[in-house]
Amino acid sequence: MNKLILVTNDDGIHSKGLKELVSVAKTFGRVVVLAPDKPQSGMGHAITISNPLRIAKYGAFENVEAYDCSGTPVDCVKLAIFEVLKRKPDLLLSGINHGENSSTNVLYSGTMSAAIEGAMEGIPSIGFSLADFDSDADFTAVKEVALKIIGRIIEEGLPDNTCLNVNVPKIPYNQIKGIQVCTQAHAYWDDKFDSRLDQFGRPYYWLTGEFSDVDRRLETDLHALKNGYVSVVPTHFDLTNHAVLQKLKYLEE
Amino acid sequence: MNKLILVTNDDGIHSKGLKELVSVAKTFGRVVVLAPDKPQSGMGHAITISNPLRIAKYGAFENVEAYDCSGTPVDCVKLAIFEVLKRKPDLLLSGINHGENSSTNVLYSGTMSAAIEGAMEGIPSIGFSLADFDSDADFTAVKEVALKIIGRIIEEGLPDNTCLNVNVPKIPYNQIKGIQVCTQAHAYWDDKFDSRLDQFGRPYYWLTGEFSDVDRRLETDLHALKNGYVSVVPTHFDLTNHAVLQKLKYLEE
Repeated sequence: MNKLILVTNDDGIHSKGLKELVSVAKTFGRVVVLAPDKPQSGMGHAITISNPLRIAKYGAFENVEAYDCSGTPVDCVKLAIFEVLKRKPDLLLSGINHGENSSTNVLYSGTMSAAIEGAMEGIPSIGFSLADFDSDADFTAVKEVALKIIGRIIEEGLPDNTCLNVNVPKIPYNQIKGIQVCTQAHAYWDDKFDSRLDQFGRPYYWLTGEFSDVDRRLETDLHALKNGYVSVVPTHFDLTNHAVLQKLKYLEE
Repeated sequence: MNKLILVTNDDGIHSKGLKELVSVAKTFGRVVVLAPDKPQSGMGHAITISNPLRIAKYGAFENVEAYDCSGTPVDCVKLAIFEVLKRKPDLLLSGINHGENSSTNVLYSGTMSAAIEGAMEGIPSIGFSLADFDSDADFTAVKEVALKIIGRIIEEGLPDNTCLNVNVPKIPYNQIKGIQVCTQAHAYWDDKFDSRLDQFGRPYYWLTGEFSDVDRRLETDLHALKNGYVSVVPTHFDLTNHAVLQKLKYLEE
């Protein structure tokens, strides 16, 4: 019970999902929060290298040491380890994200990038996301799931260089069919841009689009979520496509 | 020779590396450039979702249609495909990056994230990086390498969902021993923060640190580069650690 637990997210320190994750984390040890001072959704694995970073004490969590940070979620993890805690925490929790981070969304997600950064540092790390973008979403179910999964991971640890990407469907807890350990689906965004003219007649563009699930496999996170299961994808940071190494050896000639 | 080639980077539209890559790309078809209007190193797979994006014609490339963009490298790829070209290019080239993107740097690199975004869109995509941060670096060797690799990939194509991460050591072309198709090394940054006080006595932090190669395997990109080879890592966007799926099935209980 003396675990030191770092909690961060990408929706920012004021988000409800972070507060809910802190309340779960407190069950397992001493919690320190270091989270972005503003929303950082879609920041992926970005780090701040050409600007200085700021951190400030944040008093809104009861009996929990907390800081907000001017940087990205990955900046938060680095600053927490090397400046605030001055050690690696025993556990890193990221989220609870307002919105799903299944499939290829893991690449764009600041919440999951924070967890991946934790894995790179050798810290058992878990990212939690709820398939509900509402800023006042109901986190009851995902909190129950988080309690269970965090407990198991504290007991069992995680494989080297691997964090967990946990996504919870937007259904009541008693309708969740179970947990599935699965693979990242190969789905993608059918991007569109909403093109408008500003007050001077100059064009500007908003990224929009629809998520398109083209993966017909049954063992994916998207398949699990659609069928009422919590998806857990063991996520690592080796992007090598090992399956094609031999095929590409011709480039050495 | 009627290939449509999109060229982008993360060092920004004014960088020498981009200009050098455009000159190589012109050998293979019609080039369109869409690159960030300012340096975007370390932006990883970030996308801009809460701000509008701007693009503007850029006239500094001779006989090449070019645009700068207010967003990240991944924004550039999306805008190029869906707003500027209104189609997928036949080839996407990213770089030439001023500085190495080997090992886990692939996660932080905007240059490689642009190539990965290309792969997600089904476009044959290659990121090129030179192990020299100098803004006036000598790109002679990497241009020769790029000519060769692009030529082969136009002939042979790339495996599905896979781009190439090409890194070239900072040595003259005639000292390069060859090309090695290899795996992403598991090295990482020993992060440090340079903590200072501003004019009001408030602390601020600069991210710094040293790159630490702890991977003893011989088949990695870092090993290749250290030994005078060009490294080529087939890079995909499935972050699932397939090797541990069975081991984690206990979470389903």
